[in-house]
Amino acid sequence: MSYAALKQLACQANLDLVKAGLVVLTWGNASAADRAAGVMAIKPSGVPYDRLSADDIVVLEIASGRIIEGTARPSSDTPTHLHLYQSFPSISGVVHTHSACATSFAQAHQPIPCFGTTHADNFYGAVPVTRPLTAQEIDTDYELNTARAIVETFTKSNIDPVQVPGVLVASHAPFTWGPSIAAAIENSIVLEFSARMALASLQLNPQLAGIPQPLLNKHFFRKHGPGAYYGQKTK
Amino acid sequence: MSYAALKQLACQANLDLVKAGLVVLTWGNASAADRAAGVMAIKPSGVPYDRLSADDIVVLEIASGRIIEGTARPSSDTPTHLHLYQSFPSISGVVHTHSACATSFAQAHQPIPCFGTTHADNFYGAVPVTRPLTAQEIDTDYELNTARAIVETFTKSNIDPVQVPGVLVASHAPFTWGPSIAAAIENSIVLEFSARMALASLQLNPQLAGIPQPLLNKHFFRKHGPGAYYGQKTK
Amino acid sequence: MSYAALKQLACQANLDLVKAGLVVLTWGNASAADRAAGVMAIKPSGVPYDRLSADDIVVLEIASGRIIEGTARPSSDTPTHLHLYQSFPSISGVVHTHSACATSFAQAHQPIPCFGTTHADNFYGAVPVTRPLTAQEIDTDYELNTARAIVETFTKSNIDPVQVPGVLVASHAPFTWGPSIAAAIENSIVLEFSARMALASLQLNPQLAGIPQPLLNKHFFRKHGPGAYYGQKTK
Amino acid sequence: MSYAALKQLACQANLDLVKAGLVVLTWGNASAADRAAGVMAIKPSGVPYDRLSADDIVVLEIASGRIIEGTARPSSDTPTHLHLYQSFPSISGVVHTHSACATSFAQAHQPIPCFGTTHADNFYGAVPVTRPLTAQEIDTDYELNTARAIVETFTKSNIDPVQVPGVLVASHAPFTWGPSIAAAIENSIVLEFSARMALASLQLNPQLAGIPQPLLNKHFFRKHGPGAYYGQKTK
Repeated sequence: MSYAALKQLACQANLDLVKAGLVVLTWGNASAADRAAGVMAIKPSGVPYDRLSADDIVVLEIASGRIIEGTARPSSDTPTHLHLYQSFPSISGVVHTHSACATSFAQAHQPIPCFGTTHADNFYGAVPVTRPLTAQEIDTDYELNTARAIVETFTKSNIDPVQVPGVLVASHAPFTWGPSIAAAIENSIVLEFSARMALASLQLNPQLAGIPQPLLNKHFFRKHGPGAYYGQKTK
Repeated sequence: MSYAALKQLACQANLDLVKAGLVVLTWGNASAADRAAGVMAIKPSGVPYDRLSADDIVVLEIASGRIIEGTARPSSDTPTHLHLYQSFPSISGVVHTHSACATSFAQAHQPIPCFGTTHADNFYGAVPVTRPLTAQEIDTDYELNTARAIVETFTKSNIDPVQVPGVLVASHAPFTWGPSIAAAIENSIVLEFSARMALASLQLNPQLAGIPQPLLNKHFFRKHGPGAYYGQKTK
Repeated sequence: MSYAALKQLACQANLDLVKAGLVVLTWGNASAADRAAGVMAIKPSGVPYDRLSADDIVVLEIASGRIIEGTARPSSDTPTHLHLYQSFPSISGVVHTHSACATSFAQAHQPIPCFGTTHADNFYGAVPVTRPLTAQEIDTDYELNTARAIVETFTKSNIDPVQVPGVLVASHAPFTWGPSIAAAIENSIVLEFSARMALASLQLNPQLAGIPQPLLNKHFFRKHGPGAYYGQKTK
Repeated sequence: MSYAALKQLACQANLDLVKAGLVVLTWGNASAADRAAGVMAIKPSGVPYDRLSADDIVVLEIASGRIIEGTARPSSDTPTHLHLYQSFPSISGVVHTHSACATSFAQAHQPIPCFGTTHADNFYGAVPVTRPLTAQEIDTDYELNTARAIVETFTKSNIDPVQVPGVLVASHAPFTWGPSIAAAIENSIVLEFSARMALASLQLNPQLAGIPQPLLNKHFFRKHGPGAYYGQKTK
């Protein structure tokens, strides 16, 4: 893919986040990776969405973090995106929002339990929350350490980031990802909607248990993996 | 009704669900039955609503489930729709959504109590929730077993599906139906709005009792049945 | 005012309710009175808002309830409106909605406490809730008895319907009124917004006390009565 | 800046509040100060937003409160704005709304705790709530005493109004401010969004502690002060 096409893809994805109601002001950012070229394209820092164009998008080399194209300062969360691409080799899109309900769980340092099939269609179980960063991790390389805490969350708990394509950063907000930037955005929509319903289900029953395991298996795997039968056949 | 007209009806109904704010992404589906012809028309699986046209709609024979017209794969929930039409002979429309508040009750395995006249105008009492499916029911013929659990819920509790035209599938989401697809959609709108208000009423009083029986009778029967006097006279 | 002008006023008010987000489907109705002529104009029963025109509006004599102009069946809540105009001589507009948060209080049989100046600007204290109707009151002349219960609520508790221009009908929904249909609509907007905030304030503190009396006095009377100084001078 | 430009700025800001969904009816007001000229421009009292034009805006001298330009009666909250400009010399914009979630905290007489980075990006800690006014303060010079209570809140608790650019007036609603009217509006958006998420986080954990101090420092100071690195370089 040309850098121009990648930048266009990233720009459109950032605008799609606004259309989906997941961002206000300049919060949130989306990046798209071209794995063959070893690069990612990301939104510039603090630019209002209504003035965003593909020309503002910054292209960086994933391995080194070196800026390859673009004159704007890239998103302050760029080190987080880079480290996620470096650590999770199968993903090609990363999305960060402060969407209201998912962020409310992040602020409460609570995972979003999987209470139903809406959540189970895209996330194979609860969406975990990172441990709080230490004062030192915050003071130095904060954004990189955010990504390290994310990766640690999946490694320590042996969660597959392909099966649970999202996380809550404690006291902060969610990140989602996927095999494409479109999939990462879909996951951020599902995450917010699932969080909203989890809040209401927990109001009805604060001790509510998660979805039964067979139903979780059924819904996740009818959309993902070799036995999938949801949607139209890929041509 | 011609298949073309039925497909147009089903297509428009699916788009009306989006306009009513009841679906996001590709969640949800609506089907319309032509009882004289013994067929139903349903949305294809996983097709984005903004690309949906009547040509995508699939027509199936209700008795056999055989595809009569259409090349797309029908909604993965097709076996649920078929079994509901087979079991509830007076209905000609079925709607499935993941609307946020009704789904929150489904996730909590709690019926939506009838707390007021808004609910009572369309549902004669609480909207029940199915029992959870067994692992075996999930593994084999999941969508058909979903419908069987719905029918069982009404049969075992002796609830008339004409008077309570909707249900919550445990850990999943609501289904509604009606004598037409338009009625089924109206019921899905009322269900979501009633669920939203039930959540707030329960916040105010977690032990809240249901609407008094005489008021339930009054509101349901002034709109339904031989003594109805709500709305304009049918010409 | 000509009947044509009154009908136009009532029609526009009903459409304004939709625009304000206070009604869905065919719920809700607004009426405008011409006190000099002794008549009121009200929405027809069950007509969808997107097809409503001034020609559909029905004009009735307030004292007798006799239809003076219009061929459609008037709103099923017409006897409620008529009795309110008969009982509260200073009002010239009545609005009924099922707006979500106010209705949630009505369903819980709880008044909406006055917790702040937003509420106090339009309602001089808590918005009361009627007692439940008896089975007999529901079976015969239900809509008229609804209005009687409203009037009784104000009489028994010695509340001035001019100072508290709204009520919650138990297990049902709110009614508001005012010196004009525009004022009645404004009151329905304030009622819903106040109810929404009261729900959140009660989540923060379920034992929350009402607004201090001096602040209630200040806000209500800086907008209403001889010492009012809010807004522009009436020319 | 010419008075005409200042009035245009204030007018547009008031309309931006509507667009941001922070005001309904005629609630809320925004003012812009020209510190070099010693004046502020504010919305007239009770004028509907859809009829508001720059010609309606009133210009007053900050030191004396004298009207310099404009024939409409200025917002009833004008004495509050004037006193805030007099007391907080670095601010050039003040915004008052009744935004739903922030107002719900004000009604509950509870500060909005800082639970996450969304809040921390604009407010360096909890947003405080004023003490209730005395009956005497309400009866005489109410709007001025409101501002005095705001200033007292910051002085007594030794909070810097530059670092915490907003407050909740008890039983009333929020005020925000900033170095420009644009910054004051952004702060009112962040305040409402933070309040909304705080309500949800408190539902999940009513004893939730605030954001860890190092993370609060990090987020506030990466956007504010000499070491800021968020956004694009100021040219």
